[in-house]
Amino acid sequence: MTEFRKTDFQKTRARFRIPDGVIYLDGNSLGPLPIAVEERVARTLADEWGGQLIRGWNSAGWMVQPRKLGDRIARLIGAPAGSVVVGDTLSIKVYQALAAALAMRPERRVILSDSGNFPTDLYMAEGLIETLGQGHVLKVVAPEEVEAAIGEDVAVLMLTQVDYRTGRLHDMVALTAKAHAAGVVTVWDLAHSAGALPVDLAGAGADFAVGCTYKYLNGGPGAPAFIYVAPSHAETARPALSGWMGHEAPFAFDPSYRPGAGVERMRVGTPPVIALAALDAALAVWDEVDMADVRRTSIALCDLFIELVEAQCPMLELASPRDGSRRGSQVSFRHPQGYAIMQALIDRGVIGDFRAPDVLRFGFTPLYIGEAEVCGAVTILRQVMDGGLWDRPEYHKKAIVT
Amino acid sequence: MTEFRKTDFQKTRARFRIPDGVIYLDGNSLGPLPIAVEERVARTLADEWGGQLIRGWNSAGWMVQPRKLGDRIARLIGAPAGSVVVGDTLSIKVYQALAAALAMRPERRVILSDSGNFPTDLYMAEGLIETLGQGHVLKVVAPEEVEAAIGEDVAVLMLTQVDYRTGRLHDMVALTAKAHAAGVVTVWDLAHSAGALPVDLAGAGADFAVGCTYKYLNGGPGAPAFIYVAPSHAETARPALSGWMGHEAPFAFDPSYRPGAGVERMRVGTPPVIALAALDAALAVWDEVDMADVRRTSIALCDLFIELVEAQCPMLELASPRDGSRRGSQVSFRHPQGYAIMQALIDRGVIGDFRAPDVLRFGFTPLYIGEAEVCGAVTILRQVMDGGLWDRPEYHKKAIVT
Repeated sequence: MTEFRKTDFQKTRARFRIPDGVIYLDGNSLGPLPIAVEERVARTLADEWGGQLIRGWNSAGWMVQPRKLGDRIARLIGAPAGSVVVGDTLSIKVYQALAAALAMRPERRVILSDSGNFPTDLYMAEGLIETLGQGHVLKVVAPEEVEAAIGEDVAVLMLTQVDYRTGRLHDMVALTAKAHAAGVVTVWDLAHSAGALPVDLAGAGADFAVGCTYKYLNGGPGAPAFIYVAPSHAETARPALSGWMGHEAPFAFDPSYRPGAGVERMRVGTPPVIALAALDAALAVWDEVDMADVRRTSIALCDLFIELVEAQCPMLELASPRDGSRRGSQVSFRHPQGYAIMQALIDRGVIGDFRAPDVLRFGFTPLYIGEAEVCGAVTILRQVMDGGLWDRPEYHKKAIVT
Repeated sequence: MTEFRKTDFQKTRARFRIPDGVIYLDGNSLGPLPIAVEERVARTLADEWGGQLIRGWNSAGWMVQPRKLGDRIARLIGAPAGSVVVGDTLSIKVYQALAAALAMRPERRVILSDSGNFPTDLYMAEGLIETLGQGHVLKVVAPEEVEAAIGEDVAVLMLTQVDYRTGRLHDMVALTAKAHAAGVVTVWDLAHSAGALPVDLAGAGADFAVGCTYKYLNGGPGAPAFIYVAPSHAETARPALSGWMGHEAPFAFDPSYRPGAGVERMRVGTPPVIALAALDAALAVWDEVDMADVRRTSIALCDLFIELVEAQCPMLELASPRDGSRRGSQVSFRHPQGYAIMQALIDRGVIGDFRAPDVLRFGFTPLYIGEAEVCGAVTILRQVMDGGLWDRPEYHKKAIVT
């Protein structure tokens, strides 16, 4: 397979700082530190903030970063330049996208989602419904029932493309087409897609999309989110969170709000300059990466992991689709003692994570994970399982963040 | 005066990095870099993100930072511990506070604000009104008319305590009392108050307050905002932006939202760890500062600036209250050529800023500004005015950020 790659994964791996003795299989939760981020952030602090002070908004280009970084991300998700902007958190961007989408279907009352959506998307929808006070309903079905539930009563279909627990991948093209046939507006959450697999928002005809940058895009803990608005909606979309940075002329200090051009209107408050600098440096790796290579290699790594775990740790039950084409870039297994098993693994340098009630998650990111890490992780997993090494009191003690 | 100070401003000044040749009078827009931030952020990147990876949420305390930093800010604004939380941007926090406040007065329809409020507060209110769709009205009066406009038709009084253009200071105690007498809920924006002057939210009985940390709190460009909810409302306030971090148990991944305890419910998405680390380091200076000293010295510096400018640059018209007790920590002057004059000043190392249509703003922060800087700034201002040095084409060219 290697000979057909355009991407040199040895080179990309050298761009990340992974501690010695760690096999990092949790890039689907928090990507590791790109080495370039350290120097870039130090420079942003000392030279830009420290040296240029308030002038940095112009001279260091702080003000235009949300759009520039949006363009860099756009290339990775099949979006045209000028259709993506970076800022806030994913929860906030979900709220904006959903509010704008609902406003496009004022006569409908159903938001359709699935039980595989990340909870905050559903929570934000609940809050928006209560704020709207118009009797909207959040209808949550099983992932496999989504297609059948799309109908002309539905205003918005809001889905996370890759299930955060199982890695199950929705067919964005098919579901968007079905939604549009029923007059339904789509909001896609790409939290586990962007940087993990090829996404073609424009090709799928998606209306809105949102995502985060701290997973496969390696922007750092709590790095800002992004939002995509299809160019056909961008000049009419209503930004419910109408902050000054989304104003047509923020520095005119007009008393009334006028939405800015296109996706710029989805900006809200003052951009988080230090976090944007970190993200900018982190995104540089994608200049030398072919997303088809990433996808093909990710599937191969995941397939290998499944094969080895099923052969060596039969007490773990596969929770992810076996078919790589229907899976994101992670593999999950279920076990009643999943939490303790994961703590035992982490204690031995194999870092994945746990999702209640019983899911062990392992993310595979070819940018810094290869076959050696897959084999090494399974060896340790087997030791933990065979030796019952997870059965210690300290591994059952729950942390704040699981 | 000096002998009565508890605060050693020579010592606080040494904590900031101000470039040679710069007199920085724009800390009311962006505070300068605290030296400790550089080391702290570098450590957060290398040791926490790089070294601890996903484990940093627990081991480095990332998850509890929004509340811990909230407590540090609480001390500066007269709020009890546990009543303030940090995150998002000021615009987002305005939306949350206003939505929660309006929900407390479902039978009333007026949001009262003033023309001295910062535009994004008004814009966010506009957006919320449209989203609510219940016929709320944003009533904007002149600052001096606010008191008379408070009546039983008003649901929420939403004010920025210190006018961003003129520095005019509202009487929080009197207006809150008048509001409460009429059954009005109060939302105070402390953008130009926190770290600038003593604030006593609890003493004033304020219901909600919001603020930013990149001005007088020196948290860095685009640093996160904060929100205060009076303890009496904290267990019932409705978080319109109901994100997973405000959930009672974020890592239970429940399908339905249940607000967290007290002000924790005002958290929304994943906290911005790097920005919070910068802010944490920036806030350390307040451990050795007495806010009464800051206020007294700030007024003296502003008074001196007014006296010198009026004596030496009579063509500039004072736009700020002359009475220091009715003014924040800035002084503004008007001039039809204000923009060009400010560019000429900046070009000569005196950094203030300009606010349309004609306001030159100068912020005075005793933490790093003393009488020598005041005198030096006026000397250069006089040279610019007397020599007509502002009248060059390049000083009229508008930048993105003014």
